[in-house]
Amino acid sequence: MSDDTTHSDLHERIVTQVPSHLDVTEVQYEGPDLVIYTETPRKFAENSDLIGDLARTLRKRVTIRPAPGAQSSPSGAETKIREIAPDEAQIQDLEFYPTIGEVIVEAEKPGLVIGQRGSTLREITREIGWNLEVVRTPPMESSTVDNVRNFLTQERGERREFLGKVGEKIHREPEKDLEWVRITTLGCCREVGRASFVLHTPNTRILIDCGDKPGAEGEVPYLHAPEAMPLTGIDAVVLTHAHLDHSALLPLLFKYGYDGPIYTTEPTRDLMGLLQLDYLTVASKEGRTPPYSSEQVRQAIKHTIPVEYGDVTDIAPDVKLTMHNAGHILGSASAHFHIGNGFYNILFSGDVHYEPTRLFNGAVNDFPRVETMVMESTYGRRGDYQTDTEESEQRVHEIIRETYEKDGIVVIPAFAVGRSQELMLVLEEAMREGTIPTMPVYLDGMIREATAIHTAYPEYLRDGLQQRILHEDENPFIADQFQQVDGGQEMREDIASGEPCVILSTSGMVTGGPIMSWLELLGPDPTNTLMFVGYQAEGTLGRRIQGGNVEITLPGRADRANRLTLELRIESVSGFSGHADRAGLEQYVGEMNPRPETILCVHGDEQATDQLSSALYQNYNVRTYQPKNLETFRFP
Amino acid sequence: MSDDTTHSDLHERIVTQVPSHLDVTEVQYEGPDLVIYTETPRKFAENSDLIGDLARTLRKRVTIRPAPGAQSSPSGAETKIREIAPDEAQIQDLEFYPTIGEVIVEAEKPGLVIGQRGSTLREITREIGWNLEVVRTPPMESSTVDNVRNFLTQERGERREFLGKVGEKIHREPEKDLEWVRITTLGCCREVGRASFVLHTPNTRILIDCGDKPGAEGEVPYLHAPEAMPLTGIDAVVLTHAHLDHSALLPLLFKYGYDGPIYTTEPTRDLMGLLQLDYLTVASKEGRTPPYSSEQVRQAIKHTIPVEYGDVTDIAPDVKLTMHNAGHILGSASAHFHIGNGFYNILFSGDVHYEPTRLFNGAVNDFPRVETMVMESTYGRRGDYQTDTEESEQRVHEIIRETYEKDGIVVIPAFAVGRSQELMLVLEEAMREGTIPTMPVYLDGMIREATAIHTAYPEYLRDGLQQRILHEDENPFIADQFQQVDGGQEMREDIASGEPCVILSTSGMVTGGPIMSWLELLGPDPTNTLMFVGYQAEGTLGRRIQGGNVEITLPGRADRANRLTLELRIESVSGFSGHADRAGLEQYVGEMNPRPETILCVHGDEQATDQLSSALYQNYNVRTYQPKNLETFRFP
Repeated sequence: MSDDTTHSDLHERIVTQVPSHLDVTEVQYEGPDLVIYTETPRKFAENSDLIGDLARTLRKRVTIRPAPGAQSSPSGAETKIREIAPDEAQIQDLEFYPTIGEVIVEAEKPGLVIGQRGSTLREITREIGWNLEVVRTPPMESSTVDNVRNFLTQERGERREFLGKVGEKIHREPEKDLEWVRITTLGCCREVGRASFVLHTPNTRILIDCGDKPGAEGEVPYLHAPEAMPLTGIDAVVLTHAHLDHSALLPLLFKYGYDGPIYTTEPTRDLMGLLQLDYLTVASKEGRTPPYSSEQVRQAIKHTIPVEYGDVTDIAPDVKLTMHNAGHILGSASAHFHIGNGFYNILFSGDVHYEPTRLFNGAVNDFPRVETMVMESTYGRRGDYQTDTEESEQRVHEIIRETYEKDGIVVIPAFAVGRSQELMLVLEEAMREGTIPTMPVYLDGMIREATAIHTAYPEYLRDGLQQRILHEDENPFIADQFQQVDGGQEMREDIASGEPCVILSTSGMVTGGPIMSWLELLGPDPTNTLMFVGYQAEGTLGRRIQGGNVEITLPGRADRANRLTLELRIESVSGFSGHADRAGLEQYVGEMNPRPETILCVHGDEQATDQLSSALYQNYNVRTYQPKNLETFRFP
Repeated sequence: MSDDTTHSDLHERIVTQVPSHLDVTEVQYEGPDLVIYTETPRKFAENSDLIGDLARTLRKRVTIRPAPGAQSSPSGAETKIREIAPDEAQIQDLEFYPTIGEVIVEAEKPGLVIGQRGSTLREITREIGWNLEVVRTPPMESSTVDNVRNFLTQERGERREFLGKVGEKIHREPEKDLEWVRITTLGCCREVGRASFVLHTPNTRILIDCGDKPGAEGEVPYLHAPEAMPLTGIDAVVLTHAHLDHSALLPLLFKYGYDGPIYTTEPTRDLMGLLQLDYLTVASKEGRTPPYSSEQVRQAIKHTIPVEYGDVTDIAPDVKLTMHNAGHILGSASAHFHIGNGFYNILFSGDVHYEPTRLFNGAVNDFPRVETMVMESTYGRRGDYQTDTEESEQRVHEIIRETYEKDGIVVIPAFAVGRSQELMLVLEEAMREGTIPTMPVYLDGMIREATAIHTAYPEYLRDGLQQRILHEDENPFIADQFQQVDGGQEMREDIASGEPCVILSTSGMVTGGPIMSWLELLGPDPTNTLMFVGYQAEGTLGRRIQGGNVEITLPGRADRANRLTLELRIESVSGFSGHADRAGLEQYVGEMNPRPETILCVHGDEQATDQLSSALYQNYNVRTYQPKNLETFRFP
C-alpha cells in the first residue's frame, strides 16, 4: 500500500498540491472520507477540478468543509439557498450545524437542489461557505426514516468522533504482507438462514452479515468461532441487505463490545432498524428473551456508514469495498472486496434477483475482477424453475377472482420488505385495469411502514417506477384500496367476517406475527384462500403447510385451543420470489465476464448447494464448493 | 460422556466396587491414568482380575500404588526382586522412590522381569508392596537415552504434579455438545515441511505435530492463526514422529507459554530431543538465531506422556487417542482420534511406509472406524514409483563396487534417523555375505547416537531384527566396520584422502551439517560418488544437485571460496525412502476396511497432493481434498 502515508505527511502533501491562495486549516479522516477544513471555502468551491484531482492523487474520497467561522450566518445562508435553488425543489426544512459547517436541507426534489453534476450545490457553497447535505422529504410519511434521521442528528457530535476514530484505523499503515485472504463460514451453509461470514487478511477482519435462522431461533451464527473472535477486534461489518436472516443479530455485536462501523446502503440501514425492532417485539410476544435490546439497535444505526451503489470505499488499510445493486429488496447489495493493490478480489453476491422485477433493476454481475464469489443458492436445485412473471401474475389474478366469486378472502403471507411491495404493484395495476375487481387490500404488520421507506429512496427502485413516484404523481403505493390494519385484533375479526378482500400479512414464512391470527380467523372456512408467493425455508410453519400439513399448532397459546385444522384452499404461486431461480443463478454466473475462478455455493439447503455447485462446475468449468458452516477457505 | 464422574464420586464408586478387606487410601489422576493408593498393596496384587474389572467399569487405565509406608524396606525389596526375577534378566540397577512407592529396575532383558502377561511383576509386587517400572539397559550406550532418563528421574516431583493437573483436565466434565469436529491446516499443505494441524471440538483443541520446513527456515507453521490461539489454551499436543519437519518447533510452544502434555511414543520422545538439540546447534553454526533454547527442549521432554502402539488413551474429556505403527522411522505413528462416544473418528497418517522394511513392520491400516483421514502424499505423483527393495539394494551394491574399483569413496547424505539404519543393515549384510568388499563405513553427524536409540527400543523394530538384537547377540549395528567420525574436520580430511570407504552423513537433504564438509572434500574428485537414497524436498540443496545443478554454493563461508563445482559421480537410488511410494499409498487406502469417507491429501508438493487426491477419488470413490495451509474443515 505504497500510496498510504501518515497523517502529517498527508497534510503536507495536500498543502503542496493546493494553490497557495487556498487555505488548508485542518485535515481529518471521517470514516472512509478525507475532510479538508478551510478558511476559504468559497475559493475551493470555485476550483471545481481541484477536489477530483486531490481524490485521484491521494486515492481517497475528499470532502471540503469550511473552518468554523468561515461561513455566512445561518439566516443569511438560508436566504441564499432558497434564492439559488429552484422553487420546484420544494425545500421543506433546513438545519444548521456550525461546528462542522454543515446544513441539512430537506426537499421534496433533492435532485434540483444538487443540480447537474452537483453544479447547483457548488454554486450555493461558493456563496455561503456552508456544506450542504440534501435529503428527500419522503412522499409517504415514514416514522422509521424520521426516527433514524432525528436520532442521527442528535448523535452528530458522538458520530463525528466515531468517524474520526474509524478514519484513523482505516488509513493506518498495514503491518503485514498480504500472503493470503481467508473466508470463514459462520452460517447459512447447506441451510437458509443465519448468513454470516468472516473475510480476513493478515491485517484485517471483516464480518459480512449476521442473521438469524427463521424457524430455528436457537441457531445463530457461530460468532464464537476463533476466526471471529474477539468480536471487538473486527475492523468492519458489511451488511448486504436488511432481511433478518442477514441482519437480525448485528446489534448483538454491540452488546459484545464491538464499536466499529457497519457499511451498508441508506435504505438498508433504515429497513434493518425497522426489522430488528420488530424482531425484538416478536421475541417478547412469543415469550423468548430477546438477545439484545433496542439500545443496541440504536447503536447499530449510529455505527452505520452509508455507501452508495458503485462507490469505491476504503474500509481497511488493505480492503476496498464496492456495493452493487443485487435486485433482491430495497437497498440490497452484492459486496465486492478489492484486497491489496490488485492482490485478490472477492464478491459476496448476497441474495440476488438477476432479472429486473417490477420493483428493482436486475442484479449487477459486471465486475472488472472477481477471483472468488460467495454465491447464494436458494433456488439451486435442478427443478427450481419459477414460472415467468406474466404467468405468475395471471395465476394470482385467477386465484383472487375465484376466491372473490365464492365470497372468500385471500390471505398472503409476505415479507414486509420486498414481496409485499411487488404484490401491491401487481394488485394496483390489476384493479386499475379491471383484471380483478377493485376491493380492499389490507396491509398487516409492518408492510405499510416498509412501503413508506421504499418511497423515501426512489433512486433505489427500478427506473420507470422511480419516475412514477417522483415526477408523475402516480405513486402506486398510495392508491385508495391499500388500507393499514391499525385496529388490532378487533379490526381483524371485522375484516375476516366481512366482504371479499385481499390481506398481505407478515411474517412471510408463517413463523409468527399477525399471519398467525389470520390463519386462526380464516383457516376454518373453505371459501378462503391461503396463497404463498415466497420461499418457505425448511423448519418453518409455512414450509410444513406447503407440504400438505394442515393440522397445525399455533404457538404461545397454552390457555386456548391451540390446535387448528386448515380447511381453506392452499395455493403456492412461484415467480414472485426475490431470489433468482435456478436458470437465473446459472445465467448470473454464465454472463459474468471474466468469470470467477472459484465459487462457494451457500444460502441454500444441502440439495440446492450440491446441485448448483455441480452444475456451475460442469457448465462453466469453475472450481466450486458447497461449504459447511465453520469452515475456512484460503485464497489464492 | 455419561461415564464420566467427578473426583469424589469416583472415589465412592471405587470403594463400593473393591472387596471390603482391601484398602483405598487415595484416588488420583496421573495424566490419562487413574492411580489408586492403598495400604494393602499385596492383597490388591493377589486379586489379579480386580484391576481389569475396575478399568472396564470406569473406562480408565488403572494403576495400583502402595500408600507410603505400606511396603518393605528398599534393601529387603531389592533382595526379593533379585530372588524372584530369573538371573538371565540381568538386572543392572535399581532406584527406589518412596514417595510414590515405585522402584525403577534396569535390566538387559526387561521382559524376563515382567513375565508372561505380567505374572512375575505381580508376584514381586505381592511380596514387596512396591510398584516396579522395568526399563531396558541399552545394548549400545546412548547418551540421549541416559540423559532423558536421568532428567526425568530428577524431575519426578514436578512431573507428578504436572500429571495430576493434566489428569484433572482430561477427566473434567465436557461443557458443550459435540456438534462438530474441525481440522485446521497450519502447515505442510501443498508442500513438504512444517507439518502442523489443529483438531478441535467444541470442548477441546489438540495440536498435531509442529515442524520446520527443510530448506526454508523462515517458513514455520501458522501458529498465529486464530484457530490455534491462544497456544496456552491447547489441551494436548500429539507428535507422530521425531523428524524435524514434524517436531522442530514443539519446544517453541513452551516458550509461548504452553504447559500441557505432548503425547508420543518413548523412542520418539528421545529422538525428538536429540534432533531438536541438533537443530539448535545447526542454527547457531549457520548464524541464525534459534527460535528457542535447550531449556525449552527439556520442557518438551518433561511434558511428554509416552503412549504405546495400540493403547487407547483419554487425552481430553471427549477425545481418545490411539497411536499405531506407521513404519516410517523408529517410534513413528499414525494418530487415531476417537471423538465423543462414537461421534467421529479421524486418523492422521503421519509419514507412512506401508510395506515392511528391514527395520520396521509396515504401517497399520486396520481401524474399526475412520471417517476422515489426513494422509501424507510425499510420493503422490503419477510417476512416483520406487524400484523394489531387492533391486534397489543391488543397485547400491553395484555403485559401491564400481566406486571401490576406481579407488573412490561413496558418500550418502542420510537422515540420522531412519534411512541410515536401513542402509547400515544393507551394508552389514552385503559385507558379511561378500556381495561387496568389507571396508569401513563411517557414520558422521548423529547417526551413531540415533542408532544407539534404536537398540534401546528393539520392541519398535521389525520382529526378526528385534530377536537378533535381543536374543541372539547378533546385533548388526555394532559390526566392526561401523566407525564414528569423532575426530572432527581433521579426521574427515584423513578419511577423504584415504582408502575406499562408505560415508553416511547428515543432513539428509544437504541443507547443512557435516555433509557440507564431505561435498567440499570429495566433490572435486570424479572417482568418488554422491549417492542419494532419500526424498529431497523442494528448495533444498539436495534437490538442486539431484536436478543436475553441480555448481553449488556452500553456506556460511564468506571468508573462503564458497563456490564449488561437483565433479564426482551423482546417483539417486530409490527404494530406500521411509515413505510409501505412489503404489504403496494407493494400496494403504485400498486395503483399509472400512475406508474413510473423506481423505485430506497433505505433506506433498502441489502436483503430488493433486494427483494423489484425484486417483483416490477415482479408484475408491472417496471424497478427497488437497487443502491449502490455513484452511479449516468441519466434520461430519
